[in-house]
Amino acid sequence: MRIASLQNQRGPFLGVRRGDGYLDANAALPDLPRDLGAALRAGLLDRLAELAALTSIDGLLVRDAAYRPLVTDAGKILCLGVNYADHAKEASIQKPDYPVVFSRFATGFVGHDVPLVRPRKSTHFDYEAEFLVVIGRRGRAIPAERALDHVAGYALLNDGTIRDYQTRTSQWTVGKNFDRTGSMGPELVTPDELPPGARGLTIRGRLNGETMQEASTADMVFDVVSAIAILSEAMTLDAGDVIAMGTPGGVGFVRQPPVFLKPGDVFEVEVDGIGTLRNRIVDEA
Amino acid sequence: MRIASLQNQRGPFLGVRRGDGYLDANAALPDLPRDLGAALRAGLLDRLAELAALTSIDGLLVRDAAYRPLVTDAGKILCLGVNYADHAKEASIQKPDYPVVFSRFATGFVGHDVPLVRPRKSTHFDYEAEFLVVIGRRGRAIPAERALDHVAGYALLNDGTIRDYQTRTSQWTVGKNFDRTGSMGPELVTPDELPPGARGLTIRGRLNGETMQEASTADMVFDVVSAIAILSEAMTLDAGDVIAMGTPGGVGFVRQPPVFLKPGDVFEVEVDGIGTLRNRIVDEA
Repeated sequence: MRIASLQNQRGPFLGVRRGDGYLDANAALPDLPRDLGAALRAGLLDRLAELAALTSIDGLLVRDAAYRPLVTDAGKILCLGVNYADHAKEASIQKPDYPVVFSRFATGFVGHDVPLVRPRKSTHFDYEAEFLVVIGRRGRAIPAERALDHVAGYALLNDGTIRDYQTRTSQWTVGKNFDRTGSMGPELVTPDELPPGARGLTIRGRLNGETMQEASTADMVFDVVSAIAILSEAMTLDAGDVIAMGTPGGVGFVRQPPVFLKPGDVFEVEVDGIGTLRNRIVDEA
Repeated sequence: MRIASLQNQRGPFLGVRRGDGYLDANAALPDLPRDLGAALRAGLLDRLAELAALTSIDGLLVRDAAYRPLVTDAGKILCLGVNYADHAKEASIQKPDYPVVFSRFATGFVGHDVPLVRPRKSTHFDYEAEFLVVIGRRGRAIPAERALDHVAGYALLNDGTIRDYQTRTSQWTVGKNFDRTGSMGPELVTPDELPPGARGLTIRGRLNGETMQEASTADMVFDVVSAIAILSEAMTLDAGDVIAMGTPGGVGFVRQPPVFLKPGDVFEVEVDGIGTLRNRIVDEA
């Protein structure tokens, strides 16, 4: 099953993918929240699955909607830093023996096919192709052998970063959270469509059609199981929480000469089996 | 006006302080959200002020409620690190020329008079007395001269920290976010009750009655006006967002010998004019 956070002239809604369109889940289920996090916290993923299995879909199919950021109401968006050995090496950061974790906020994201915004304050706007995990079931101190039971699904993330602000102090928060510099989507792909932990998939970042990043998700330092087990030793992971799994080597700021995103560029994050997240870059108005 | 996030056997509600009790704002205003962030985003602070001015309060006064964390549904909780020169010095960190920002999540907090929890994973549980700002009005690139117009009010924070996890990697996120290691409250104090920007107030941290931290909020490296102006250059500050203003010198881990919180301890954060936030420490069950 594939679920998207969408909006059209009637407002935001959750869509269940059907062919080249989406079933309007809120039209079918009047008590369904319109934000994915709230829907997951209410335990309604099963009802979306029933909807996905409907054969009679008269009036529910929508083709004119725009993508919102996949999760707009996460209790936390935890991002793993330097979680691929090749990216740790290129960024001259030691391969971590414990997850390096920073946070992003909803204001930092746009949806699939919506422009990313290069801010007035900086031209050092870099891309980071990633995939993410959305938590489906609340837990603390989750044992590794049950970690994947807590996953609602997987999606893609461009962890777009303002590099000069990221390194302006020891903590990366500001450089990781300029408005509309990241994207999240296009769809939540449920685990039944992917290998366990989304392991062993090829992840690619493409700038204007050219492959800039390419790796296997098997090369992550901390995989999905480890990330859930280790992070939940410290904090409760709630439904709707997001864990971004880090980016492989090939980002822009370490290249010679450096490559930064500029207006007119198109960046794509692609993971086989999950899909493609595509965003054009515009300058801040 | 003073507003608290409360709960009793009938569930969560917002209370407007009246004498030694609270007016149940949700009983008076049926369309009022029960979380402070949502109430602020809905622009309902003025309606709470009308309630505070009521002379007939029959049936609205509650005295049996427990405190929830003041803001349970912030879009972001931004915390300033090393924002008092004396704490920067004791922690051997350079006084910052740009705000050092990390993030906490709702799962890390308890309310006033509710036990803080020392986790099983570590005994390095340290206190940090702070005050915080709650944003009342959405804005981006807010000019310094209008920054205080965006403040809904002020409250207190114990930015309780698991020190060994804070420094386990370059990013402090995990050590700052163990479940129930921070507290937030007791009340949102509206700006009319305080000097502009809560500037020049004495802030104290007391462990078992002994003053461990004491400073003036005039000694902050970045004051409330600067924090709002600088952070909003990067990201939209929305109503319900929280900015924690950092802790003065005197924290536990730099003392000789180090002082850490242990079960039975009581830590108090006090700022003249805002109030006292008090929490006992217990061990994780």
